[in-house]
Amino acid sequence: MHDSHIGLAHGNGGRLMRELIDSVFARHLGRGNPILDVHLDAAPIELPRGRTLITTDGFTVQPLEFPGGNIGSLAVHGTCNDLAVAGATPFYLTLNAFIEEGLEVQLLERIVMSIAEAAKDTGVAVVAGDTKVVRRGEGGGLYLATTGVGIAPKAKVLKMSAIRTGDRILVSGPVGDHGVAVMLAREAFGMRGDLQSDAASVLPLTQAALEFDGLRFMRDPTRGGLATVMHELMHVTGLQIRLEQTAIPVREPVSAVCEMLGYDPLFLACEGRVVAVVSEQDADRLLTRWRMLSKGEHASCIGTVCSGKQRVILVTELGGERVLEELEDDPLPRIC
Amino acid sequence: MHDSHIGLAHGNGGRLMRELIDSVFARHLGRGNPILDVHLDAAPIELPRGRTLITTDGFTVQPLEFPGGNIGSLAVHGTCNDLAVAGATPFYLTLNAFIEEGLEVQLLERIVMSIAEAAKDTGVAVVAGDTKVVRRGEGGGLYLATTGVGIAPKAKVLKMSAIRTGDRILVSGPVGDHGVAVMLAREAFGMRGDLQSDAASVLPLTQAALEFDGLRFMRDPTRGGLATVMHELMHVTGLQIRLEQTAIPVREPVSAVCEMLGYDPLFLACEGRVVAVVSEQDADRLLTRWRMLSKGEHASCIGTVCSGKQRVILVTELGGERVLEELEDDPLPRIC
Repeated sequence: MHDSHIGLAHGNGGRLMRELIDSVFARHLGRGNPILDVHLDAAPIELPRGRTLITTDGFTVQPLEFPGGNIGSLAVHGTCNDLAVAGATPFYLTLNAFIEEGLEVQLLERIVMSIAEAAKDTGVAVVAGDTKVVRRGEGGGLYLATTGVGIAPKAKVLKMSAIRTGDRILVSGPVGDHGVAVMLAREAFGMRGDLQSDAASVLPLTQAALEFDGLRFMRDPTRGGLATVMHELMHVTGLQIRLEQTAIPVREPVSAVCEMLGYDPLFLACEGRVVAVVSEQDADRLLTRWRMLSKGEHASCIGTVCSGKQRVILVTELGGERVLEELEDDPLPRIC
Repeated sequence: MHDSHIGLAHGNGGRLMRELIDSVFARHLGRGNPILDVHLDAAPIELPRGRTLITTDGFTVQPLEFPGGNIGSLAVHGTCNDLAVAGATPFYLTLNAFIEEGLEVQLLERIVMSIAEAAKDTGVAVVAGDTKVVRRGEGGGLYLATTGVGIAPKAKVLKMSAIRTGDRILVSGPVGDHGVAVMLAREAFGMRGDLQSDAASVLPLTQAALEFDGLRFMRDPTRGGLATVMHELMHVTGLQIRLEQTAIPVREPVSAVCEMLGYDPLFLACEGRVVAVVSEQDADRLLTRWRMLSKGEHASCIGTVCSGKQRVILVTELGGERVLEELEDDPLPRIC
């Protein structure tokens, strides 16, 4: 297309919109993907046997590009990861783009290329999409909304209600990388680092975990971080969650930035980590299995589900205990 | 919930977000809908036999409420209608809400109630959702993105490539009502009218049309209006489209407003109309069938698919011909 920036006319249903869709979206997302047909109102999808699962997510990250990814790869991984932690293999995605008038077409194209690449890596096809152009100043550059469809085996249904006293809590890698990487990318703090977002597919990790009968439940600790997942576990099971602070993997630059700015890495988003709750018997075996995977080499057993007062307790390095409260107000910069 | 307006903390993944989701979204959308479980990453859906179809749409209408609907009912109908015109029965929806900081909670709740009502009327369940809160001034109040899943009979595949010379073009009712109703609702023109948006489910119309073997293709003329659908038919088939201006139903207030403001109703969005391309043999029978339906009483046969130069031609009242050009720049106020 000829224009260097998006205008309102790119959203009006006419020729310019057709050119934008053909030259940016269909060009990259349609490669090797015969299902994507921009002339269809609805796309046909074939689903293998099993339980069909569906999930949806909105993405509003600022800046749109950050070390380790951009809003496009984040949208694909975030949505596919929600299917993966539910025990499914993702197959199809739909994509909604709310584009702000004035967005650079080259930036949009880089983001769409990342969507195509992340989709290819994860083995999913973008089969339907829609674009809307919103007025200058009304759209944060670009918002994406993605819906994913996947298939899970009929035999294995993961649910929080399967969690029992004595179960172990595992995390697949260091927490807070995504949150800190996005914060640093804003430059507003006057700091730069070489820390990358952990945004990636967790499918290899979740598929490995599904091999264990003792697997109860998985979740990706995105918005609200590890602490928020722990609170949800506590709320739904009515049990106590005890975490060992020293067992929770946090990269040194993440700790350093958090200390400087007064954030708690346990509340920062990860975009490529899995939290698994697993029986005591299978905990060590799953940990060993995860550590064999490139994305799981820093996996750790971080806590236990206990009876006792319904709380999330953090056992500190010196053996003290502190209650980890639920995220209340908004002490964190918006990163998703 | 206690707050009267949405704050950034309603999007942070913590307690306030949980309360917003429970008290506004799950409360209305979960009624009689056991699949919606806010604690799941992905929702299980059961699909009847047939071809599975998926579609997605973004909604950015201003104002959020207008005579005959609001952004919520519009999102449900818009998405289900895309499945309906593809020959499918819609079953499931996912919902993404980008909420602007400062939005009135009561307004949000009215919109969510409309979503619930429209979903119930159409027979679909909202099975998964996500909310993001964006900073004040960055979100037009509320944007919605919805994805729909439906099932179509295996035997009947509608496609533009099935269109033949001699086929007739039918529209199920007056065009431009939605576009003009939204324009008037803005009050920016200093005019008020009692015209309502036509936003509604087209499922009864599309299901009736599917009874006819001669049905080739259907579309709902939303963004870009009837004229844009005609241009797409022309582009894809390579044929000529001839429309009879006097046969195209346009309500008197729509004509009047368009005349005053210099708009062409053929480019204005409809949100409850169907355009069908059907064999000459079945055209009159489908027209009769549609006119028996409450939403089809003003249905009309508006044109013919012809050989000859690839153009959309409008035959005027006096028998003159003019070429209907594709929508180029943005002469219309943004209404979707």
